[in-house]
Amino acid sequence: MIYFSNDYQEGCAPQILERLAATNLKQTDGYGLDPYCDNARQLILNACHLSRTDTDNRHWRDRETAGIVHFLVGGTQVNSIVINSILRPHQGVICSDTGHIYVHETGAIEHSGHRVVYLPSADGKLTAAQIQDTLLAHLYDPNIEHTVQPAMVYLSFPTENGLLYSKNELQAISTVCHQYHIPLYIDGARLGYGLMSPCSDLTLPEIAALADIFYIGGTKQGALFGEALVISNPDLRKDFRYLIKQSGGLLAKGRLLGLQFSTLFEDLDKPLYMELSRHAITQAMRINQTLKTTSHKGIKLAWDSPTNQQFAIIHDDILHSLKQQFVFSTISKQPQDSTLVRICTSWGTKEDDVSRLIDKLS
Amino acid sequence: MIYFSNDYQEGCAPQILERLAATNLKQTDGYGLDPYCDNARQLILNACHLSRTDTDNRHWRDRETAGIVHFLVGGTQVNSIVINSILRPHQGVICSDTGHIYVHETGAIEHSGHRVVYLPSADGKLTAAQIQDTLLAHLYDPNIEHTVQPAMVYLSFPTENGLLYSKNELQAISTVCHQYHIPLYIDGARLGYGLMSPCSDLTLPEIAALADIFYIGGTKQGALFGEALVISNPDLRKDFRYLIKQSGGLLAKGRLLGLQFSTLFEDLDKPLYMELSRHAITQAMRINQTLKTTSHKGIKLAWDSPTNQQFAIIHDDILHSLKQQFVFSTISKQPQDSTLVRICTSWGTKEDDVSRLIDKLS
Amino acid sequence: MIYFSNDYQEGCAPQILERLAATNLKQTDGYGLDPYCDNARQLILNACHLSRTDTDNRHWRDRETAGIVHFLVGGTQVNSIVINSILRPHQGVICSDTGHIYVHETGAIEHSGHRVVYLPSADGKLTAAQIQDTLLAHLYDPNIEHTVQPAMVYLSFPTENGLLYSKNELQAISTVCHQYHIPLYIDGARLGYGLMSPCSDLTLPEIAALADIFYIGGTKQGALFGEALVISNPDLRKDFRYLIKQSGGLLAKGRLLGLQFSTLFEDLDKPLYMELSRHAITQAMRINQTLKTTSHKGIKLAWDSPTNQQFAIIHDDILHSLKQQFVFSTISKQPQDSTLVRICTSWGTKEDDVSRLIDKLS
Amino acid sequence: MIYFSNDYQEGCAPQILERLAATNLKQTDGYGLDPYCDNARQLILNACHLSRTDTDNRHWRDRETAGIVHFLVGGTQVNSIVINSILRPHQGVICSDTGHIYVHETGAIEHSGHRVVYLPSADGKLTAAQIQDTLLAHLYDPNIEHTVQPAMVYLSFPTENGLLYSKNELQAISTVCHQYHIPLYIDGARLGYGLMSPCSDLTLPEIAALADIFYIGGTKQGALFGEALVISNPDLRKDFRYLIKQSGGLLAKGRLLGLQFSTLFEDLDKPLYMELSRHAITQAMRINQTLKTTSHKGIKLAWDSPTNQQFAIIHDDILHSLKQQFVFSTISKQPQDSTLVRICTSWGTKEDDVSRLIDKLS
Repeated sequence: MIYFSNDYQEGCAPQILERLAATNLKQTDGYGLDPYCDNARQLILNACHLSRTDTDNRHWRDRETAGIVHFLVGGTQVNSIVINSILRPHQGVICSDTGHIYVHETGAIEHSGHRVVYLPSADGKLTAAQIQDTLLAHLYDPNIEHTVQPAMVYLSFPTENGLLYSKNELQAISTVCHQYHIPLYIDGARLGYGLMSPCSDLTLPEIAALADIFYIGGTKQGALFGEALVISNPDLRKDFRYLIKQSGGLLAKGRLLGLQFSTLFEDLDKPLYMELSRHAITQAMRINQTLKTTSHKGIKLAWDSPTNQQFAIIHDDILHSLKQQFVFSTISKQPQDSTLVRICTSWGTKEDDVSRLIDKLS
Repeated sequence: MIYFSNDYQEGCAPQILERLAATNLKQTDGYGLDPYCDNARQLILNACHLSRTDTDNRHWRDRETAGIVHFLVGGTQVNSIVINSILRPHQGVICSDTGHIYVHETGAIEHSGHRVVYLPSADGKLTAAQIQDTLLAHLYDPNIEHTVQPAMVYLSFPTENGLLYSKNELQAISTVCHQYHIPLYIDGARLGYGLMSPCSDLTLPEIAALADIFYIGGTKQGALFGEALVISNPDLRKDFRYLIKQSGGLLAKGRLLGLQFSTLFEDLDKPLYMELSRHAITQAMRINQTLKTTSHKGIKLAWDSPTNQQFAIIHDDILHSLKQQFVFSTISKQPQDSTLVRICTSWGTKEDDVSRLIDKLS
Repeated sequence: MIYFSNDYQEGCAPQILERLAATNLKQTDGYGLDPYCDNARQLILNACHLSRTDTDNRHWRDRETAGIVHFLVGGTQVNSIVINSILRPHQGVICSDTGHIYVHETGAIEHSGHRVVYLPSADGKLTAAQIQDTLLAHLYDPNIEHTVQPAMVYLSFPTENGLLYSKNELQAISTVCHQYHIPLYIDGARLGYGLMSPCSDLTLPEIAALADIFYIGGTKQGALFGEALVISNPDLRKDFRYLIKQSGGLLAKGRLLGLQFSTLFEDLDKPLYMELSRHAITQAMRINQTLKTTSHKGIKLAWDSPTNQQFAIIHDDILHSLKQQFVFSTISKQPQDSTLVRICTSWGTKEDDVSRLIDKLS
Repeated sequence: MIYFSNDYQEGCAPQILERLAATNLKQTDGYGLDPYCDNARQLILNACHLSRTDTDNRHWRDRETAGIVHFLVGGTQVNSIVINSILRPHQGVICSDTGHIYVHETGAIEHSGHRVVYLPSADGKLTAAQIQDTLLAHLYDPNIEHTVQPAMVYLSFPTENGLLYSKNELQAISTVCHQYHIPLYIDGARLGYGLMSPCSDLTLPEIAALADIFYIGGTKQGALFGEALVISNPDLRKDFRYLIKQSGGLLAKGRLLGLQFSTLFEDLDKPLYMELSRHAITQAMRINQTLKTTSHKGIKLAWDSPTNQQFAIIHDDILHSLKQQFVFSTISKQPQDSTLVRICTSWGTKEDDVSRLIDKLS
């Protein structure tokens, strides 16, 4: 079977495995206080055009409990720790009704005590106007303290359905957030697949400047596992390592994360992270182009995604036949005996496998 | 000014104040372990046609940590403790999108770690079919454990907008809940106003039989403060006093609650609780009848509520004039320069005040 | 039976009941936004020598969601809301090993997510040195972020065993707290009994100046129920009403609390609150003097408490006889067939009842 | 530098890296629903002499949300999820005062709402009598519901200071737990190092039979990362995958965990897991023997640990010299200018490195 069901179905980029093997018996301190993590943190700061400030170190020790860049294992963990770190008990986080924290994390945010204040969205994207309306509606609610106070914004770049915010859209959202003094958090589980899309007009340093806090996803982007959290806004850095540890997110062998992100970002001009992303996009666009021309055949593009996730509505007879050879994600049943499926490429997708799929789709 | 803005704007029924005065210097144990509470618990069991079972006492002590009837101070507290007592961490509570726990409790349920899974409702009522669909959609979700498990149902009788479930409707909901092994919890903040409505075909013992757990509201129904929680389902009783104490709900002078509910329920045939409720409904129906005939004048009934809360859409010019003499709750701005307001009667509403209002409305 | 078991076994000071009766049918807004609460807040500010600052109001509305003085129903509720409002998720609260939040609140603080970091204490009091040592031990822990960060101090005045901090002791603690930028919170469930003790060298304004936040207990001091929370430190006031509501602590008929505290504090020169406290202390000192001279008879003072709670070790034969007429709190079994009991006076203790007890003890 | 500071300072057993490399581009489903995990689960069941029961599957789907064996990333995560899964809100977990959940997890248990009820212990071990006393003291507390209900027992095998429970000791604890209907949870972060100690009289199936739930630590025992949780008691299995996901513990590429534990347990007669553990113990015993004979030289064994963690008190002058070549963990300063250090071996410790250390110690 050939899997197009998700972007975490293989292991990792071979360069990473090599690095793990080469350093396997080196001895280091644990919990991210090793030279590999130090190196990876600096590489990511460089890539984001950020730099350390004096307040990011506890002066009485070399150890950082604050820090700008932190490495964690998975996305749900990052989302939960970040949001729980920022909000006070009566506050909630604004997200779209397709937001991962709302639909696919078993209520992790509520488990940490906070409501996910979700807003309806036809395309899965939030708008600056929608956020502002929500904040104003709260401010003018006569029972204001009887309701959850919206106090940060969560969005994904790309969104769950593969779409992108333009630079203008993201700037508008960032402006509203700053105006109302609430942080903007960007979930970058697939950040590379967004940035490397031909339709994106945003760069990594721009993301770092517009978000107060965001993460660079590794798990779906060529790492074995791991996410690099970047806290652009110095006000949000304090004591962050405590929060990671408390939520079980401080990996004993933190070096594994440092090694992976070092490998992904050590080439400043052509980071492996971006090269792997580019590959996935190239393959996705081949599928996208094919789907755009197949609508007469019971297969049509559901919407035009510029990233590695493509969405198609396929007649069930055809789908049944395709499933003999390929695995997709089923999203939902659709009218007229058809099904909405996700076709996902990744850093590891083989050109030949895509060719085989295109053959069947055409 | 004459207040019709809510049903907690006065103190309490005079009989209650007299009882408090008469017993003021009597000495008792604290925390609900006093004879007044014992008496009130028995009266409420009688009124609900419930009785103690062997498992409700810890045999090694006289003290109950379980118990069927518990007295608490306010509704938000009760809702939060009940739901937190029943749900495991990954579970959520189903309610209507106008449910008090969703709209007016500052995220108290999420604060205790659980999502409020709210369902859209045109009239604020849940349906059995809607609940079943929600449960089945969860069971057949391919990512089932990535989503919140709906595990209990919350509804209000009457609802926030003054409507009632019929016996058939409530039986259907109760049946679905039992079929899927999830408890049904009824918020009875205004239970008396529901039961005493001429449109209700339900009795208190029927409520007690259909719900797994419910409360008889005192605060809005003639008590100074206080709610009587009844745990019909023995499986939900264990250790309940711990949970009350942990959430700061175990009143030191619990006797105050026992005295109030004794007063409200000591006449088994004609409980003061029901008499006070009946008075509010009578006054509300006078307003209802008036509103039904005023639509030509820029005042119209928003919907036909059979309980103590009446809802009207009033042109802003007329409203401005009414506000010189009366206080209502503003719900929302409406088209054509008008406003949706709530006009609320209570146990304490004076007939003359209603006459004055009717004069102005007519 | 004559109860000396606690200080919440009667109703309330008759002046309060009168006030409740006199205002019973007046109509007001709910949730503490009524004139009685406004008046009580101002009276308490006066009594504490505090005043409002510009930042305490939301300028876009009259409604305060911040505020300096808040009225709540009971002590466990206040403690939990205060501590939960101040601490971030990885932080804990320092208290003595007899602290009420540690021993008698069913883990309410942990329920809100925070560890109670308790320190051993022979007499139930914390010392400034002990607090500083705890903070330094944390700062120099090589695994600092693997441990709970102590971030506020909780103490009771008087302590659970009836003792008092001197002005010097409390100033030293307050100084350490300010030096390490952690708030000092004083639980004043029995504040009046402390301030009115002949052994206290502290005043209410001094408490208000030394604490960042504290409460003036009503439940045990002559009110039916209720505690007045005072937030001296402006940094801790933001959004406080949200937190009260979220935890089910915002009483619908908040006026009941306003009326009670108005009655207790309206005489600025001789507040009823202090007069009631003085009475309890006078009666306690009569018992204290008696106990000091009875040690030859199988009854001895356990320690010398200067407040309304007296502690005696009584031989079980004598205790058995006393229990025919009196109720005490049993604290613990002691060697040589004797028992440690608490003998508690209150605002409501009758002089004659104390005389009867003294007769039996002598 | 040669590290003896901990048992997670290298990568992993080479066999595991090989397996990761060999399977790297195989495609599988995520979240532990892959053949490698299935295989590892079965191998662990075999090793523990456990088998599936009918109730462990949801019959309406192939997917297990219950399950006996689950793979997680790290110990703090496992401890927090397990305890949070079992306890109701008012309950706490008993552990020793050196328990990892008490001293080194930043209050993760309290963060999930539960008190860690720690008991004093001279050697870091709990006793059956101590547990029973704690349970009885709670049951007979006159203010029972005002205190945290102890409702499960946590212990480590080996303990944090390297000691072991004998079979008799563990059986006695298990018996008390069953008698009072509270689960026994064993933290096996270093389980292999315990079982392979010449001083242990316990086997893995015996651990599985005595504990209601326990985990087999991988991170410190030769895996890159990962812990295998085994839920012996069927009552504790329900919905467990939801809880893992909610806490961010469901690894997207769960296969990584399955592959590692397959490698560690596929040889049923001589599991790699046990062989790696045996190596660490052999090296630790060489150090132990040396330390036993060095006390005249300012170096002495602090206590006699039968596992991979050795504890020595070393004069600071000697320590200073040793630190030129070796890294230890500093535990605490000791009298007479000396320091308590931990000297740790692991699966990866080189014989030559131990020889070098012994040379310096002798």
